[in-house]
Amino acid sequence: MAFPDLQMALREWTDVVGSAHVTSDAESLRAAERCTFGTENRIPAIVRPASREQVQECLRVANRWQTPVYPVSSGKNWGYGSRVPASDGCVLLDLSRMNRILDFSEELAYVTVEPGVTQEQLYTFLKERGSRLWMDATGASPQCSLIGNAMERGFGHTPYGDHFAYICGLEVVLPEGDAIETGFARFADSKAAPLYKWGLGPALDGLFSQSNFGIVTRMTVWLMPEPEYFQAYYFRCESEGDLRAVVDALRPLRLNGTIRSASHIANDYKVISALRQYPWRETDGRTPLQGDLLKHFRREMKIGPWNGSGALYGTKAQVREARRLLRRALAGKASRLQFLDDRMLRIAARFAKPYQMISGWNLERTLAVLKPVYGLMRGVPTDHPLASTYWRKRTSPPAKMDPDRDGCGLLWCSPVAPNDGAHAERLTDLAAEILLRHGFEPAISLTVLTERTIACIVSIAYDRDVAGEDGRARTCYKELLEACFREGYHSYRLAVSSMYAMVGEGTYPDLLRSLKATLDPWNILAPGRYVPDGRFHTVSAQTAAGSARAVRTA
Amino acid sequence: MAFPDLQMALREWTDVVGSAHVTSDAESLRAAERCTFGTENRIPAIVRPASREQVQECLRVANRWQTPVYPVSSGKNWGYGSRVPASDGCVLLDLSRMNRILDFSEELAYVTVEPGVTQEQLYTFLKERGSRLWMDATGASPQCSLIGNAMERGFGHTPYGDHFAYICGLEVVLPEGDAIETGFARFADSKAAPLYKWGLGPALDGLFSQSNFGIVTRMTVWLMPEPEYFQAYYFRCESEGDLRAVVDALRPLRLNGTIRSASHIANDYKVISALRQYPWRETDGRTPLQGDLLKHFRREMKIGPWNGSGALYGTKAQVREARRLLRRALAGKASRLQFLDDRMLRIAARFAKPYQMISGWNLERTLAVLKPVYGLMRGVPTDHPLASTYWRKRTSPPAKMDPDRDGCGLLWCSPVAPNDGAHAERLTDLAAEILLRHGFEPAISLTVLTERTIACIVSIAYDRDVAGEDGRARTCYKELLEACFREGYHSYRLAVSSMYAMVGEGTYPDLLRSLKATLDPWNILAPGRYVPDGRFHTVSAQTAAGSARAVRTA
Repeated sequence: MAFPDLQMALREWTDVVGSAHVTSDAESLRAAERCTFGTENRIPAIVRPASREQVQECLRVANRWQTPVYPVSSGKNWGYGSRVPASDGCVLLDLSRMNRILDFSEELAYVTVEPGVTQEQLYTFLKERGSRLWMDATGASPQCSLIGNAMERGFGHTPYGDHFAYICGLEVVLPEGDAIETGFARFADSKAAPLYKWGLGPALDGLFSQSNFGIVTRMTVWLMPEPEYFQAYYFRCESEGDLRAVVDALRPLRLNGTIRSASHIANDYKVISALRQYPWRETDGRTPLQGDLLKHFRREMKIGPWNGSGALYGTKAQVREARRLLRRALAGKASRLQFLDDRMLRIAARFAKPYQMISGWNLERTLAVLKPVYGLMRGVPTDHPLASTYWRKRTSPPAKMDPDRDGCGLLWCSPVAPNDGAHAERLTDLAAEILLRHGFEPAISLTVLTERTIACIVSIAYDRDVAGEDGRARTCYKELLEACFREGYHSYRLAVSSMYAMVGEGTYPDLLRSLKATLDPWNILAPGRYVPDGRFHTVSAQTAAGSARAVRTA
Repeated sequence: MAFPDLQMALREWTDVVGSAHVTSDAESLRAAERCTFGTENRIPAIVRPASREQVQECLRVANRWQTPVYPVSSGKNWGYGSRVPASDGCVLLDLSRMNRILDFSEELAYVTVEPGVTQEQLYTFLKERGSRLWMDATGASPQCSLIGNAMERGFGHTPYGDHFAYICGLEVVLPEGDAIETGFARFADSKAAPLYKWGLGPALDGLFSQSNFGIVTRMTVWLMPEPEYFQAYYFRCESEGDLRAVVDALRPLRLNGTIRSASHIANDYKVISALRQYPWRETDGRTPLQGDLLKHFRREMKIGPWNGSGALYGTKAQVREARRLLRRALAGKASRLQFLDDRMLRIAARFAKPYQMISGWNLERTLAVLKPVYGLMRGVPTDHPLASTYWRKRTSPPAKMDPDRDGCGLLWCSPVAPNDGAHAERLTDLAAEILLRHGFEPAISLTVLTERTIACIVSIAYDRDVAGEDGRARTCYKELLEACFREGYHSYRLAVSSMYAMVGEGTYPDLLRSLKATLDPWNILAPGRYVPDGRFHTVSAQTAAGSARAVRTA
């Protein structure tokens, strides 16, 4: 038999979750192996546990038969690998059935969720209750898992944008099947369990983010009270060189708390690809888009080489003062600083044309540009950014978008730079040069993720149905990732295909290997994911493997 | 010989650090074994390495001769055990010679320090440079180590009050002597190493706080830009029952970012003990202070049963709006809400008396009450709170205070409660009842440490020179700690004498033991500190111990 261990494991997994929740038909498996770039890792089966207890049992089975598993919450890890495991031959542990919202407090502003709870589900939950709390949403699919994104340390656009900073109280199933709870949740009935991050003794949450040390089956997410008043702002730079001054001008406002949210600066390519597909006709089919045609689209869409957006949250007076400070900071550095709130949006919907006549401001244009992020800045999940994954496709995005299925090519590289203009300029120049040289449009966004850092997201968007493009994109991505590492702009997150960047010699990878070997002696949980494979216990693991096999044959 | 291993180790440590930096005279050792409560753990020697390399060598020696060591940065862990190790027979590894400030950025607002760098040293460093950055300081000694406090997850009073939340990029020497760097600092020349908390892959910082998994030899501390305007506020509750309403009134302002700092509510005992010593004369030597005499002091000091303080930071307009919101929130719930800034302080110094005549406000009184925290709210270290450790002494605090030396009794119990009035009331009632029953004044402060939690510090202050008091204080502390745990108010931090609260059965302590056994197979680093002793590798460790002994004898 090709997979003797797998067959035994599948039999036991079926006992645990029921045959309806074990998938092994070829079509489903091939679909799960597809993401937005070329991968080779195969998935021999999909198992869908419904509870923490079932996850524990599934891991015990995996250990018993040494069959590696790869957990996904919703599998919407777009641009980084979707559902595809970091190594070959992993059974997918699909946690999407665990979709309960377990606890909620309006007063203390939190919600406790299982891995299958999506952004849309939480948004609907809050709306239905008439809650005055806002969630933070990523620009990824509304079907994206809250736990999945937080554990990848993803980010959104509100003051709670740095997701991993706004969670606590994890329930984690360890690789061998034991379960723990982190922070104060480790103590029964701790009153501050959903409220305090560090707990007592070593703080372990970080261990379970971007790792393969455990499966998070519960998490508390902190929510933000709806502000009395919300106002979005928008500005643009007239020339590429203005980026530097703008970043430096905004930094003091972020550091002193005037700007509290993860504001956003997108280049022209990023905005254009959010608003339309590749101009195949205008370019006569040539790629990449650049030069005069790029300038033409800038003019047509009334955007600059860099386009900033963000939001102010507070009372009317707090927002008014923030507006004054923002105006003062950007004076002479950015142009067309505009502010937008719900009232203006309502007016605009009715009076866009006359408004333009009076004010000279083409509100409809601005709205089209702002729309993708206006909702996100209020924590409203949207699938609008998903459309940009169809950028290079020759056909329009379908009503029900699925970039994995539709052959949309997308690789995200996400280096982090100091919140400093010179660094922002250097990093984006570097990325633009590499992408253009490889024939891709450098769609770049800079998110002022924390007071001191900018997360730069470089999109390599292409059409997987064009022969050779997967390979060209991979080469480009590799060069970009390595160039960024070389210049000290390390990524905050990796695609499944680039986990090799974590391997290496030295005491740090040795420590990770050692922790992995301790927690997962059989290396059955998501092998290769962010953590280099264990090695210290290799010999004893092999011996133990031998004895397990002996038991099995007996 | 009593300590054969120790003698061999001492010889090698002396080779590493030089004989001037190894202390074994009885007087020094007995002094180091003294803290502000009764302890029995003995310290056989003190070794003072001067560099990370020496720390590494010291740990290798400790492993070779299986001699446990206990690192202290400055040893000012007042109320929790000062320099005293968590278990008997540990050699003190005193890191105070490592006191360099290694990196500093005014623009990106951070400083990188070694363990010996004290609050006062950083404060002076910033002043000398004319920096516009503020540090956050704890109320403990100005001689307190920044790293020591952050790794204990201590807190201060500014918006950067939750110390562990505002650090990154640790350099850690692991128990067997290897060194790692955390976050992006693991990569050479990473531009965001001092700026971004999580790095890439599992985030390990939490592992090294409140633990014995490594010795932190370098850390970056984020600093806060000096606000354009700073204003402190002060209020009091007229009756004990008002605490509940006040906490609930302040919560929304903390949650929505109007109050950005860790504000403070202290009870009458706390304020009185900060301003004077025990009224031995007025009480005719009876303890505890309560009843009419307590009310007398309230009237005399113009304080309430609960007294709030905090600060507003921002532009003039931002502070004005925060003031309006604070006034509105506290209306009818607290009385005598007063605001104070530097200008008023200057005026007060000159015109206190006429000012009182005009305004009816006894500014001098207010200043006396506010003074201990006014500076702290601006990140100015102070030894003022140290005087309160002399509360029950019969003699005045000396010019050069040293509570360890002077027999000041102090035990801090630090349960965390939800930021919720009912919980604040329940927890403080519980603490007050227990302390009074044991004959101690329940000096209590509530710090709104984060948006969702209150850290409650209960002081048991006594005179160690009174026979039997150590024992009574210990009994009281134990009852308090256990009652708080039972009711779900778990401590954010433990005294060295109460680490037993971390031991126990279950998968969580098992996980800690397993990590400990992996990182420190000989259990030589700070055994018993927050982490129960390793057990999974017991057998192999003993075998290995046997072979090490064989090597040694050979």
